[in-house]
Amino acid sequence: MLRANRAFYEAFEAQDLDAMSDVWEHSERVCCTHPGWRRLDGWASISASFYAIFTGPQPIQFILTGERAEVTGDTAWVVVDENILGDDAGATASAVNVFVRDHRGWRMVAHAASQVINQ
Amino acid sequence: MLRANRAFYEAFEAQDLDAMSDVWEHSERVCCTHPGWRRLDGWASISASFYAIFTGPQPIQFILTGERAEVTGDTAWVVVDENILGDDAGATASAVNVFVRDHRGWRMVAHAASQVINQ
Repeated sequence: MLRANRAFYEAFEAQDLDAMSDVWEHSERVCCTHPGWRRLDGWASISASFYAIFTGPQPIQFILTGERAEVTGDTAWVVVDENILGDDAGATASAVNVFVRDHRGWRMVAHAASQVINQ
Repeated sequence: MLRANRAFYEAFEAQDLDAMSDVWEHSERVCCTHPGWRRLDGWASISASFYAIFTGPQPIQFILTGERAEVTGDTAWVVVDENILGDDAGATASAVNVFVRDHRGWRMVAHAASQVINQ
């Protein structure tokens, strides 16, 4: 379960769209909120967002803290603090990631990251 | 399912801590991220945060849009846009709410709201 969550951040750091594609369920019901963005619904718009981020000026590095996973049946949610390196100041986002288990394993169905403003 | 989600926002608008308490699972695994805040873990710190918010200067009103619910077994997640009235400018947050079904019905186990900066 936590392996699926780590795979998300590894694909993000590696700017690897194929690996990111493997992480996600490819459906209309998936959604993704990047910090400060409107919510994106459906795999098509989510994959486009990662393409845009991965072709951006610089890669992002995450130091993950406070990671906690809960599993109920074939659904799981992980909460984690994303300590983001990549600009001078750095930033922290609080994330919730939801996964659903299919025959291939755990697939991400929701990612929502909220920037922490008051440290 | 959507009724449980609406009950959360109704309790929030009514500043009703008892109603908010009924919405949530009372456990250590629950978590809550208010926009801009660090994540709060466990019902004790979450209830304290709502007490602080409800005794604050003014009530908050929500206009909910883009609400979508997905149920898998006894777990569900709802995504919704919170259009927040309460100051001059207003604000929008993108929220993910996770619920687990127990013998009493659906209980919130995670709430994460991320402020939309780039409208």
